[in-house]
Amino acid sequence: MNLLLIEEHEIDASGATARVTGRRLEHLRSVQRWNEGDVLHIGRVGGALGHGTITSLGTDSAQIRVEWTSEPPPPLPCELVVALPRPPILRRTLYNATLMGVKKIHLVAASRVHRSYWQSRSLRPAAIRDQLMRGLEQAQDTRLPEVELHPYFKAFAAERLSGVVAKNHALVAHPQAADSCPGILPSPLTLFVGPEGGFNEFEIEHFEKAGARCVHLGPRVLRVDTAVTALLARIHPAE
Amino acid sequence: MNLLLIEEHEIDASGATARVTGRRLEHLRSVQRWNEGDVLHIGRVGGALGHGTITSLGTDSAQIRVEWTSEPPPPLPCELVVALPRPPILRRTLYNATLMGVKKIHLVAASRVHRSYWQSRSLRPAAIRDQLMRGLEQAQDTRLPEVELHPYFKAFAAERLSGVVAKNHALVAHPQAADSCPGILPSPLTLFVGPEGGFNEFEIEHFEKAGARCVHLGPRVLRVDTAVTALLARIHPAE
Repeated sequence: MNLLLIEEHEIDASGATARVTGRRLEHLRSVQRWNEGDVLHIGRVGGALGHGTITSLGTDSAQIRVEWTSEPPPPLPCELVVALPRPPILRRTLYNATLMGVKKIHLVAASRVHRSYWQSRSLRPAAIRDQLMRGLEQAQDTRLPEVELHPYFKAFAAERLSGVVAKNHALVAHPQAADSCPGILPSPLTLFVGPEGGFNEFEIEHFEKAGARCVHLGPRVLRVDTAVTALLARIHPAE
Repeated sequence: MNLLLIEEHEIDASGATARVTGRRLEHLRSVQRWNEGDVLHIGRVGGALGHGTITSLGTDSAQIRVEWTSEPPPPLPCELVVALPRPPILRRTLYNATLMGVKKIHLVAASRVHRSYWQSRSLRPAAIRDQLMRGLEQAQDTRLPEVELHPYFKAFAAERLSGVVAKNHALVAHPQAADSCPGILPSPLTLFVGPEGGFNEFEIEHFEKAGARCVHLGPRVLRVDTAVTALLARIHPAE
């Protein structure tokens, strides 16, 4: 936890103090062994970064005197469209995408996505938010990505696909593509990452019709969570 | 498991048949639900890729008729020097580096590496090999990376550092560096990745004296396993 993230409702009316409980309190006490008087990096969910001074550290809550000093890092200009992976890989994919600075993630159905994955507990809003928060804590960022679920491919293709592709460059990571992935990716970018085994021809046709270009990532078969990190690492927004 | 990896001693004298047991057998039977007569991707540890036909699938072993058809993918021209991370992150770092094609990994001490990490079960040869094999299985590669342990920084700096740096470009991922990391990394490359909190000044001085250049990875703080993937994804060997 490189950053203590504080929710709006945890800050008192004066704006000068926050009260932190739960997992973060446990972490402060047992893992990082902070003490009263220590100063740590803090962030306001969706807002500024700053530093916080621990004024009391009890078993049920910690009181932090807060001071906001700087803006969070700029978002990575990339919208991610990922075929829903199996639950452990989903959790890492959400974490990695957040860590790299993505602010919009679409989880979509595909013919090679097991229907049962849509019933996973990892898709509950609280479980998704937990992974996103952990990614922000590691990255020292404060802005939560937005996650949209699209459990029916045809509905996604008919209603959302053209909008998602229109405004950006769009690339599909596709093992059977003829072209290899560029060393530096254009931005803003919409990036499609398929399931294990790839999107099928029908799905690829939809993406290409909408204006996306297929590229392969070389001879090695990456796992979805690793492919996402590897691809996002190649985006170089103008600074 | 995208590839069934077969050890030399599992192949019979004729070279035509292999006998597979243990975790891989379990995976064939219960996870992937292969049947007799099915054909799957196989690889010979350290050798060729090919396809295997399951001729019998019992509870104690599977018999596979093997045929070797192609070479494994070329190694990624990068030698990795990583400050030993805590055990769960170590396992993912080994897995990710293998997945990306690294063939040489040095795990080194640093002032911000807990001494206790060197006692971890994850550093036992069998545990290291297990992560490397899983990375190869995912990537469809056969050549195991070599892993060297350097539990004393001064010994590493005195005896090995100049050799590791001399033959390659050398970059240190360092949060306090003035320069940002290039979009495409030169190769062959030696890449240094520090512990949480970075290498200390003394360590950085050693790397710079040996000829390495420090670069930062942007405003976000990546975890070691993710930083490794992100950096390796930027290496573009001439094809």
